[in-house]
Parts: sequence; structure tokens; C-alpha cells
Amino acid sequence: MERKFAIAIHGGAGSILKETLGPTLEGEYKNSLENSLVAASNILNKGGKAIDAVELAVEIMENDPLFNAGKGSVMTHDGEFELDASIMDGRNRMAGAVCGIRNIPNPIKVARMVMTHSEHVLLSGKGARRFAEKMGFERVEPDYFFTLERAKQLKAARKRDKILLDHSHDEKHGTVGAVALDMNGDLAAATSTGGLTNKKFGRVGDSPLLGAGTWAENKVCAVSCTGQGEAFIRSATAYELAARIKFAGLNLENAAYLAIHETINSLGLSGGLIAVDGFGNIAMPFNTIGMYRASLKQGEKPFIGMFKN
Amino acid sequence: MERKFAIAIHGGAGSILKETLGPTLEGEYKNSLENSLVAASNILNKGGKAIDAVELAVEIMENDPLFNAGKGSVMTHDGEFELDASIMDGRNRMAGAVCGIRNIPNPIKVARMVMTHSEHVLLSGKGARRFAEKMGFERVEPDYFFTLERAKQLKAARKRDKILLDHSHDEKHGTVGAVALDMNGDLAAATSTGGLTNKKFGRVGDSPLLGAGTWAENKVCAVSCTGQGEAFIRSATAYELAARIKFAGLNLENAAYLAIHETINSLGLSGGLIAVDGFGNIAMPFNTIGMYRASLKQGEKPFIGMFKN
Repeated sequence: MERKFAIAIHGGAGSILKETLGPTLEGEYKNSLENSLVAASNILNKGGKAIDAVELAVEIMENDPLFNAGKGSVMTHDGEFELDASIMDGRNRMAGAVCGIRNIPNPIKVARMVMTHSEHVLLSGKGARRFAEKMGFERVEPDYFFTLERAKQLKAARKRDKILLDHSHDEKHGTVGAVALDMNGDLAAATSTGGLTNKKFGRVGDSPLLGAGTWAENKVCAVSCTGQGEAFIRSATAYELAARIKFAGLNLENAAYLAIHETINSLGLSGGLIAVDGFGNIAMPFNTIGMYRASLKQGEKPFIGMFKN
Repeated sequence: MERKFAIAIHGGAGSILKETLGPTLEGEYKNSLENSLVAASNILNKGGKAIDAVELAVEIMENDPLFNAGKGSVMTHDGEFELDASIMDGRNRMAGAVCGIRNIPNPIKVARMVMTHSEHVLLSGKGARRFAEKMGFERVEPDYFFTLERAKQLKAARKRDKILLDHSHDEKHGTVGAVALDMNGDLAAATSTGGLTNKKFGRVGDSPLLGAGTWAENKVCAVSCTGQGEAFIRSATAYELAARIKFAGLNLENAAYLAIHETINSLGLSGGLIAVDGFGNIAMPFNTIGMYRASLKQGEKPFIGMFKN
């Protein structure tokens, strides 16, 4: 049987409205999503691995200041940049993750190294950075992440003493992620974020947590979530979706729909996710106003969207 | 319908053998487990809440130097004490957790405060300690946790450059945990650990991760895990058990058995868990040589065990 690859990416969910975004920014987001999608698809198209495709898709979005991850990360209450990321390989459920890592431009690459070059899954804070440095990652100064936009957001949030889930507009949840099925039938997922504007006390969301924000399991599905992280942790959302397929026999579309519109809704919280199964089906549900997202199934036209329809 | 309470606790799983433990230490562990079980049961017996019972059970074990949690925590590679804990309330799936927290004797109490006094679920490192101090927790010096036994273990582990999962003997996985069903039919779970002897790079295991080491969901089950944390993260074990009950219709015993003897075994890794369901059924499977454990169903005799049978 000849298998076809499939890939989906997201750049965060929230109150993304055509009217407020404006045509210029809309075009920029479209370009950025397309860049990531095309580069990752090229890997898959050449018979490359799902795990390499999701890593690259996320790395490209981490390097893009438009998204709340890597370079575009929001600032903590103390004006720092503390980043989270995770990656999972569906072939063997190997996984790697970092939380609260500073001074490293691409946390997703460190997460991959945790998976391949350590006995652990999750490294945190200074220790995660020390691991990255040991692995040869270059350290950048906080300036690297600094943008006037993020500083303004922090100032506004501190004034209101509000912890923002947003990356540039209110109620927009900043995270990037990718899920892929390769021609070998293998699944992988990756997620990365700068967290919350004005976050305090070393808060960790769902993005670096396997089973919450990220999951990949061959023959079942690969999932990456975005939204109010606490809701996704309290629902084990990424794994819940997999469990509905594995144990309840649901198809991907129904399992993904319920994960958001039943489980996350039942907590009165919001977000979205992207998921792909072993057949190349793709689901991208969200209960927010919009979600930056793009997908491609081999031989079909790519989809790029951000609004409800 | 009159409901009966049920509670189970654990103090870690590993190569616990009657011969190597010796009668004195066996007696001490028995006493310690009994102390925790009795105190927590008293809460439930008076009609108290499951969430209060599991917190107290864990707090008592955290204060006991026999267990790798709180006072008895093992040392990191740098000779520090970095503690992890999580707690979850099955009534509303509210949860709180801390990872890599220093200078705080009872991380489980901080986790409870994260649940009740913050908008977050997981706080890490220095931030978690700052939160604890803001909540009025007293800070202790590292001496509080220091024991000659743990220092010897670190020295031996560093010599062999080995990261030990143990708290006093090789291959013993140190964690404490509790699960309970109260007379109101509510479920709760709590887990706490000092992590791994000689751990590096801010490694975080499954204990502070909801869905991995801890889960509680009314009418489904409450779970606390112990063992090689990476296996439990890569299997989303605590939630997997719940999912097999919710989505596959398994009973607690079978779901718990499969979580350990199928899923954890399939990774070639080891550990155990304790679980209770809404009917007061209790399961305590492990694939290690032994697991410190105790349980009590209202109106029945308590069980205290550590070896295979």
C-alpha cells in the first residue's frame, strides 16, 4: 500500500478577526504559515521523517517574530523570556521537552536533543539551558527576543495586573505547533511557546507537557494544542484525543471535536488543536474566534486559514 | 445510597526484598505507612473530603525521612534538594503542582495552594518558591533535608556517574502518593517526590505532571504513580487508566493492571501505581519487586504491604 503524507501546523488560537487583523497583517500571517508548511512538506515529499518535518515546521515559526514562540516570545512579569517546547515521536513514544528555558532561540531543537541525547523527557529552567549549552546550542542575549510590541504588551498587562494569554491581541493564545504523518506511516508532533505575557511564579502551561499539549502515537494520532494551557492540562487533552480513538473507537474528526467542544468547553475555557491520524485525516477544531492554521495532504491543495471559516 | 470511603497510599516502588530490608527497617516502614493511612482515614471517617485526606496522607510521608519526598528527599547532582508534587480534585478536575521547588518542607501543601489560590496548574523552580513564600510558607535551609544516608547515596551515584531512581536501595523508585474516595463520592489524588539521586539539568519526572503521575476524576478514578518517571510521562499513565475506564468500559482492576503490565512493560520500564474508583474499589499493581503500600476500605481491615505478596 502506498502511503501519502499529511501535515498540519498552527500558530495559536484566539480572538482573530479579519476586521481587527487588517489586510497587511493577514497577508504576513498567511506568508509565514505558508513558509513553514512548504518547508516541512518538502521533507515529507522526499520521503523524509515526520519527526524531522514537525521539528522544522516549528523551528521556522520560532524564528518568525509574528508568533509567540522562539523569537516572537512574550515577556514574563519580570521582563524575561522563558520558553517551553515539546516533541514526540509516534514510532516509539520517545519524547523530549523543556520548560522555562532562557537564552535559547529554538527550544524545539533542545527538546529534540532531550529526546535523543538524554534519559529524560522534561528538563526545566537553568538546568535545561545548561543541557542545551552542553549540546552545543548557542546562547543568545535577551535582546534577541526583544520587540517593542511585546514590551508594550507587558507594560499594558502589568498596569492592569493581568496575565495575558495573548501574543498580540487580547484573548489570542500564542503557541505554535505541527503534526505530521510521513510516507512510512509514522506520526510525530511538536509544540513551542513563549507562554503568557506577564506570567509569574515560573508558570508552566501545557505546551511542554506530553499528554496535555503534545502527543504522538503511531496508528492512533499526533496532536498539538494551543489555548488556555491550564484547561489542556486539566483535561490531558492531547492524550484524551488519542484515547477516544484507541479505546472508544472514534474517528479522528469526532475525537478532536469532542476534545475541544465537549471537554475544554465543559471547563468554560478555550483553545484549539491540530491532529492527524495514521490514515492522513486532519482535524483542526477550536472554540475561539480564530486559529492560525495550515494543512496539506499529499496530492491536494494546501489549506491556510485563520478565521472561523 | 450510603457510600463508604476508601483510601490507598504508596511510598515508592522498587527492588524491595524482605531479606535485604531486614526486620527493623521493615517495621519502621510499616509504622510509617500506618501513621499516614490512619490519619488520612480519620478525616474520611468523619465525613471529611477526599482532597483533604490525600493531602494529609502525603504531608505525613513528606515529613518522614524514610520516604523520598519532603524531608527524606534525595540529592541532585549539585547536592541540592529540588522537590516535585501535584494534587488533583476529582469534583472539578482542579489541580495544582510544583516542580523543582527548593527550601519548602511540604511541596504538596504548595501544590494545593497553586490549585486554590492561583489561576495556574504548574509552577516551577524559583517562581514556585516565590509563590509559596507569598502564600506564607516558611522557608527552610537545605540542612532540613540533609541526611548522611542521602549524601552517601549521592557520592556513590556520582562516582558511578549514575542517576539513581532510588531512595535507599538500588532500583527503588522514591515517590509518595495517596488516592481517596470520600463518603460524598468525591475522588482525589496526590503525589510528591524528591526525584532522582544525582539528577541533573533540572530533570522533571511524572510526579508533578497531571495525567502522567496523578489524576482524579469523579465517577472514574483517582490515580498516583511511582517508578521510572519517563515511562509514566511517555504513557500518560494516570490518564490512560482513567481513559480505559471511561472510553473502553474496563473496571478499575483491569485498567490498572494494563496500565502497568502492558503499557509500562512495553517500554521495558518499571514502576507501580495506586488507584481507587467511585465504587471504592482499590488496585495497586506494580512490575517492580516490591512497592510500599497500604489501603483501607471503610468497615474492613487495613492492608499494609511492601513485598510481592
